[in-house]
Amino acid sequence: MGSLDSLSCKVPQDQLFNYLKDIGDGSIGKETPDCSVTKYYHDDSINLVSTIDFFYPLVEDPYLQGRIGCANVLSDIYAMGTARVDHMLMVLAVSLDMDAKEREVITREMIRGFNDTAEEAGTAITGGQSILNPWPIIGGVANTVVKKDEFLVPNRAQVGDVIVLTKPLGTQIAVNLKEWKSKNNDKYKKALKLRIVTSDDVEEINKVAIHSMGKLNKNAAGLVNKYKSGACTDVTGFGILGHLENLAEAQSSDGLELRINKLPVLKNSDKIEESIMNFNLVKGYSAETSGGLMAFLKEKDVKDFQNELEVKYGEKSWVIGEVRERKEGNKATIAKDVEVIYADSVFC
Amino acid sequence: MGSLDSLSCKVPQDQLFNYLKDIGDGSIGKETPDCSVTKYYHDDSINLVSTIDFFYPLVEDPYLQGRIGCANVLSDIYAMGTARVDHMLMVLAVSLDMDAKEREVITREMIRGFNDTAEEAGTAITGGQSILNPWPIIGGVANTVVKKDEFLVPNRAQVGDVIVLTKPLGTQIAVNLKEWKSKNNDKYKKALKLRIVTSDDVEEINKVAIHSMGKLNKNAAGLVNKYKSGACTDVTGFGILGHLENLAEAQSSDGLELRINKLPVLKNSDKIEESIMNFNLVKGYSAETSGGLMAFLKEKDVKDFQNELEVKYGEKSWVIGEVRERKEGNKATIAKDVEVIYADSVFC
Repeated sequence: MGSLDSLSCKVPQDQLFNYLKDIGDGSIGKETPDCSVTKYYHDDSINLVSTIDFFYPLVEDPYLQGRIGCANVLSDIYAMGTARVDHMLMVLAVSLDMDAKEREVITREMIRGFNDTAEEAGTAITGGQSILNPWPIIGGVANTVVKKDEFLVPNRAQVGDVIVLTKPLGTQIAVNLKEWKSKNNDKYKKALKLRIVTSDDVEEINKVAIHSMGKLNKNAAGLVNKYKSGACTDVTGFGILGHLENLAEAQSSDGLELRINKLPVLKNSDKIEESIMNFNLVKGYSAETSGGLMAFLKEKDVKDFQNELEVKYGEKSWVIGEVRERKEGNKATIAKDVEVIYADSVFC
Repeated sequence: MGSLDSLSCKVPQDQLFNYLKDIGDGSIGKETPDCSVTKYYHDDSINLVSTIDFFYPLVEDPYLQGRIGCANVLSDIYAMGTARVDHMLMVLAVSLDMDAKEREVITREMIRGFNDTAEEAGTAITGGQSILNPWPIIGGVANTVVKKDEFLVPNRAQVGDVIVLTKPLGTQIAVNLKEWKSKNNDKYKKALKLRIVTSDDVEEINKVAIHSMGKLNKNAAGLVNKYKSGACTDVTGFGILGHLENLAEAQSSDGLELRINKLPVLKNSDKIEESIMNFNLVKGYSAETSGGLMAFLKEKDVKDFQNELEVKYGEKSWVIGEVRERKEGNKATIAKDVEVIYADSVFC
């Protein structure tokens, strides 16, 4: 399977808003940017939380691609602080560019990866839709019906909250670097020549990225609920600052600066990006696939949250920022002297 | 927008089963072939009913295409005998083959058609996913949370039940014929030469097909629930007999012949199909898009069902068959002397 720049396959946010301007009042997704939330007709303490996401393959191994496709959809539900997903519907496009045998092997592996991950998440695939398409597609729908206290509306961030991130940034860089290596293109050759990366580095960073993208945010979601996080989102297509901006807009309080002062990234991804790519990683706009949860916690809960994630589940997390007071309006920012730190792994 | 043979864009059912054989126990979709049904975690009298469907454009007008895409998704929920849909998520692929202006105009029209139809259905689009793709795609997800008595598990067909269909067959034929006319291809020329159709006929049959595909099955769904239909499905990609076979398999009783003895089709679609296509319309396997509901009713309720649909909502319906006894096993059949009748319209 080939891979594509994540940025090239998603309709840009501003274009999309333009396409959507004829419908509704523009409020779709403002209050709960990660999922759609609808009250049950007969009892408004029960809510239907839903999401859909799909994309083109990013990694060579179809099993791992299925895994990433599934973890990525589930992550939107986990960002709502609920660890239980009632069911999934699978979205699949089978490539017309393959012969029948290759198509069968790759599609079955992709489905197996998706299904294993759904099982690991404790949910089940109960339906779906599949088409033939020039390009393969993998993804799906995740639905869950939950009580009021089983999920989080991410609008209660407060001055003093600490921001924790559960996966490092840089997946887009790792995926593209690997693709460029396989094509041995000019930019990759330049990076080798400048001694920014070695061939082994490419494999290493790609391996960590695949681990990261395939990791479920389920355990983190349970803790987001347990510690009554005031706001939470997952970091995906709009980059960490893009998603933080969505959260800034969603807050019910006014006068908040959601400020990032530390950026955990895949090893050397900042240097690679700076020299041969243009994804604005350190500016906060590099797209991620199946990124981590970015959770707002009371300062007193941060240690417990991080310890529990580490000791109980073997998962790393990073304190990356805080909520500060500002005069008026809410704003998402990255500190000028933001500290970039390297993450070698997503597991402890 | 171009159009494609419906059959060429859907993964064939046998291939799909092959791809899926590594996962689950093969029971997905057997009991409720149109939707996924999952019980609410805290109260199993409440059910989450979900479906997803999307496809490539079939008609030239993007507004009408959006309308058909929406009616088609909703139809799966309506086939469960529930007229209330809590929310929809839109699935959209924007064609890479257009320039920016054309892409914007067409995409906005498609979204507008989809949204107007969702509003007409009394539901709302609360989210979605959009990508750039070589081919445009339109469709979506429909979700609804319902009590036990608000939907139908289609497994209670009984000997003596009468089968009613709410839209005529032949949409695939009409859509392809129109496409062939626009290309002025050899098959279309042959049909003209053989005097099977005139140029005006093509427009007329296509117009009725578009009305039919864009019509919501919502009113029929309400009556399916009201008259406690023992089984119901909507006629789409597998053709009327394919869907009847799925129902035969879903029944809890044994020894049922689900028998069709009348086929309402778009005017002349049987002759067109017979002479220049090979879609097996009269054999029951021609794919439909956004087809009608096929509902099993007690004989005593048939007149009331049809009258109410006609008088209250101005919608036609046809008695097409019955349930007969057979020795063992369930079977879906079409009578050898099946009567083909022409439908000029879907509205009275």
